Formats: sequence, structure tokens, C-alpha cells
Amino acid sequence: MSQDLFFRFREFIFKHELIGPKEKVILGVSGGPDSIFLLSMFSQLKNELGLDFIVAHLNHGLRAESDKEEEFVKQLCLSGGIKAVSDKRKINLMHKGDSLEQTARRVRYDFFSKIAREYKRKKLVLAHHKDDLAETVILRLLRGTGLKGLRGILPRTEYENLIVVRPLLDIEKREILDYLHQKGLEYRIDKSNFDQSFLRNQVRQSLMPELEKIKSSIKNNLCVLAKNAVRDYDFILQSALKNFRDIQVKSDSGGIVLDWNKLFGLHESLQYNIIRLSIGQAKGSLKRIDLKHIEEILKLIKQRPIGSVVDLPGVKVIKDRQEIRFIPVG
Amino acid sequence: MSQDLFFRFREFIFKHELIGPKEKVILGVSGGPDSIFLLSMFSQLKNELGLDFIVAHLNHGLRAESDKEEEFVKQLCLSGGIKAVSDKRKINLMHKGDSLEQTARRVRYDFFSKIAREYKRKKLVLAHHKDDLAETVILRLLRGTGLKGLRGILPRTEYENLIVVRPLLDIEKREILDYLHQKGLEYRIDKSNFDQSFLRNQVRQSLMPELEKIKSSIKNNLCVLAKNAVRDYDFILQSALKNFRDIQVKSDSGGIVLDWNKLFGLHESLQYNIIRLSIGQAKGSLKRIDLKHIEEILKLIKQRPIGSVVDLPGVKVIKDRQEIRFIPVG
Repeated sequence: MSQDLFFRFREFIFKHELIGPKEKVILGVSGGPDSIFLLSMFSQLKNELGLDFIVAHLNHGLRAESDKEEEFVKQLCLSGGIKAVSDKRKINLMHKGDSLEQTARRVRYDFFSKIAREYKRKKLVLAHHKDDLAETVILRLLRGTGLKGLRGILPRTEYENLIVVRPLLDIEKREILDYLHQKGLEYRIDKSNFDQSFLRNQVRQSLMPELEKIKSSIKNNLCVLAKNAVRDYDFILQSALKNFRDIQVKSDSGGIVLDWNKLFGLHESLQYNIIRLSIGQAKGSLKRIDLKHIEEILKLIKQRPIGSVVDLPGVKVIKDRQEIRFIPVG
Repeated sequence: MSQDLFFRFREFIFKHELIGPKEKVILGVSGGPDSIFLLSMFSQLKNELGLDFIVAHLNHGLRAESDKEEEFVKQLCLSGGIKAVSDKRKINLMHKGDSLEQTARRVRYDFFSKIAREYKRKKLVLAHHKDDLAETVILRLLRGTGLKGLRGILPRTEYENLIVVRPLLDIEKREILDYLHQKGLEYRIDKSNFDQSFLRNQVRQSLMPELEKIKSSIKNNLCVLAKNAVRDYDFILQSALKNFRDIQVKSDSGGIVLDWNKLFGLHESLQYNIIRLSIGQAKGSLKRIDLKHIEEILKLIKQRPIGSVVDLPGVKVIKDRQEIRFIPVG
């Protein structure tokens, strides 16, 4: 059974091409069950692939236990001959418009990003698993989402200079706990749940168990949905990118300019996605942009007179005679 | 407020081009609140569009109240000068592999289909509303679904000789009940819920209210998701259909033949959808076909030797040197 888990872990890495032979990576290890499991799996994969990994631990410094957790991870690595680096960072500065969850996430990734620069590594491995994926899909459904959001947590993403990979997405929390128990591996429970929103905790602790009572296969069904969403969204995005290039009149630091007649001639699904791409490129991100904003721009193009303007967070959109301009502001 | 509801009803019909001027339609009226509301809306729309409608009522004949409900609908129509037709049909014959819900649905649509032939009408109007749509999305999520299923209930579908339209999909149950109360309109509560699965009742009565406590906008969020899914699925389906024609070698009563090298060269999202189209055309429906079957065929094409076969319900798939054949069976 534990051997089977390792094979699935290995299979997932190969299938998604997450890590290749002789790569130098960073493992994010909080000391919780998920990351201790990740560490155990990596210790087994290390020889086969000739990997070189270091462990990075972030101490949020919020509770007395935080220091003990840091010590636990350091001792564990020391006894296993694994290099471990850590840092203490308090999350006291909330960025404008960001939630506590977003701020905590940023602080964590900034820490990993710094370690990556210091140790000249590009890849970060995180311990998100199948339950995290299903929970994320539910959270997105509750908060409102489309095909893009239904993808949940991706096996591979990027953050600044980092490539972030998540090889545990096909493994359930229950399997992780069983494995740790079976192997007698110790871990620490992080009681702060600092990176978790109230809603996520609610989903994890009460909604998900309830849904499983109604339909025992729900977790798997949501993960299959997420996998399908990855595939379908990728196809739409590729098609949108191709058409985005075709209908672009200009693209420079002054913004993005599209031929709106050509945009208008495309399938509605492409229209939505090309507008999203335009905003993203003009303002550098899609922060605080939602579906209503996209619909406002479509209305601008289709119904409002030449010269009309839509002001969105970080971008101004102007309808000209033949062109639609996305201009970064602020 | 009731005027606003009528405008939204009217707007939805125009936007989705559900019903045009002077059309002759059939309204499905059970006598429950939703269909009595539909009847009231139609009585207001009738003059403006010069519509001609008849009311069709199906008596499941299961309880003493069934006859009273039939009588109620007949009397209501009589007093309003509306032609009403009804029929009594017991649902005692379960079709092989069909659930009670599916059988009830088939009996109901067959009844409407017969009325349509008798009265030479092509369009049936049903009273599914926004709550039904959100419930259906949740049901699909629980049972497992993809982009296609996330569309929930469509404003316009077809059933044999019938075009089925649902103009209430943007109106909430609560709004319907408020309207009926305000106007003093009577209705009958159908206690049988014969067309509803146990799971649907569970979703309606306990899961949905619970989700609304966690996130009050959930119903609307699910409906927005469904609307986005309609758009995105349509784009993928259109792309799949175009490519399906391009890679088809042969298509006749003997089945569908595709060039599998060409299929293999397409985006994975198209591969899934083209295989679904091929099975659908070869066997005449996608009944009892699920995602696992599609993946089995992809595996057949990509990994198994020439001459290999996959047997699915109602269709046999054979891998030849250059072609993949979908042959109807049974």
C-alpha cells in the first residue's frame, strides 16, 4: 500500500513532467503531515532521479509553537542529512485590497523566492494534495467561478522567478495520514491555519464531510471536473491567444489596441477570453477584475457610442472608431 | 415589482429568441406554483405577441389528489378561456437501465410530444426556474460532470418533434411565490414529486439552504457558472464539429470512421469531444457512456496495437492501421 502510494506519486511527476533527472529543487516543509509525507516521498525519489533538494521552512512567528515547529523541521533534516533553511516573517502588513489569506500567501512565496535566488534554484515543490484541490474547487464554486477557476490547484504554476510544482495532487489526505501512521513518522499540527480563510476552514471541517455523506464519490468527482477544466480551458486559452495576436493593432507600454470589429466577429467565448488577456497585459495582472468588468467592456464595444470609456481598477478602456484601447492607469 | 418580473420574463424570451410573434405553443401546466406563474406571464404576453397557446396537463394518476389537480387546471383554463388538454398515464413500466426519474421524464415528454402532433404545434413551454437550474448544477457536481453538464438546464432544447423552451430560468422560486401571493393566485402543491430523485429532494430541502447560509450568493453564482459553461462548451463543440468533419473518413449506417493520426494531432479537449461525437452518431445517443469510456478509446488509439477493440454499451470501437471505427451494435 505504501509502495503503491510511492508509485502513484512517481507516476504523477512523470505524467505532468514536474521534475526531471538531476534537478535541484526546494521543498516547502511546514512540518505538518502533508509536507512530512512529501519529504518522505522525495527521500525515496532522490536516488532514482539523482535529485538535489533543500528544505525551506517559514516561521510565521505568531505562536510559541512556531519556534518549536521550526526546530522540529531543522532537527528532522539534520538527522536525515538534508540541508534546511528557514526564516521568521510576521504577517502584519496587509496590502491594500488583499485579504489576510492573500497576504499570507504573498509573504510565503516571497520567502521561497528569496531562497531560490540565494541557492540558485528555480523549482519549488509544495505539498498540496487531492483534498486541497477538491476544497479549492468548492471554494471557487461558492465564491463564483468560471472554467478557469474550476481548474482548482494546478500541478505546475509560476511565481516570479519560481516554477512551483505540486506532485501530491492525486493523493488523498487520508492516504497521507495512513502512510505517516504506518511508517511511524512524526509531524506537527499547525494550529494557526494562518494561510486559510474562514470559508476554507468551514468547507474543510463541515461542508465537505456533509457532501461526502450525500455522495461518497464527491471528492473524486470534483477532482475529475478540475482535470477536465484544465484541458478545456487550455484549448479555449490557446484559441484566444491565437486570435488575440490576429486582431491586435498595437501593443506597447502605452497599452493594448484591438480591432473591435474583428473581435466582434469571433465566438463569444473567445471575446470574453481575449478581453481578459488584454486587461491582463495592459495592467500586468487580473487583480480585482471580475466577470462583470468583462461584460461592461463587451457592452462598451457592442452598444455604446464611439468615444465612450470604461474605468476599471488599473486599466481604462476606450472605444475608438475602429479600435478598442486598454490603457494602464495609476 | 410584479411588473419588473414580467419585463425580465419578456427580456429573457427576446434575448434567447425563445418565442416569436404569432407562434402557436403548448404550455406544460401541472397546477403547481411554477406553472401557474408561467400561465399568468403568458396570459400577459399573449396579446403583445399575438400568441396562440394551449395548456397540457399530465395526470400521473397515482394519488387521489391527482384527479383534483387535473380538475383544478381544467377549471382555471375554462374560466380564463384557455384551451386545456389532459391525459392520465401511470408510470409503472420502468425501462431497462433507466431510473424512476428518467422514466417519469420520458412518459411526460412522450405525452407532450403526442399533444404536439395532435394539435400541430412544435413548441413546448416549461416552467423550470432559476432554483431548478442551480439545483441541477449541484446535482451534476455531486454525481460528477464536465463542462457540458455544468450548463444545467438550457433555455432551449429539443425532444423528438418538440422544441422545448424554458423562459423562467432567470426567475427565482421566491419571486414566483411572492408574485402568486401578491396576485392572490391559487395553485396546488404536488406532493408526489414523482419526477424528482431522492438526491434532488435532498439538494433542494437541505443542501441548498445550508450552502446559502455559508454563501448567500451561491444560487446566483451557480447560475452564472452555468451561463459561462453554455458559452465555453458551445465554442469547444463548434470547434470539435468542424474538426470532426475534417478527420472523418467515412460515415454511414455501418458506423463512423476517423483518421486516428489526424485525431491524435488535435488538442486533447477536441479529442475528447470528437470521440463523444463519434459515439453519439454511431449509436444514436450517449446513453450510458461516460468519461471513462472516452478515456478507454483514447488509450486504445494511443497505446494499444492495431486490431485492438473496445466494447462499449451500444458501440464497438476498432483500431485499424490508419483508422478508428465506431460500429453500432445490439
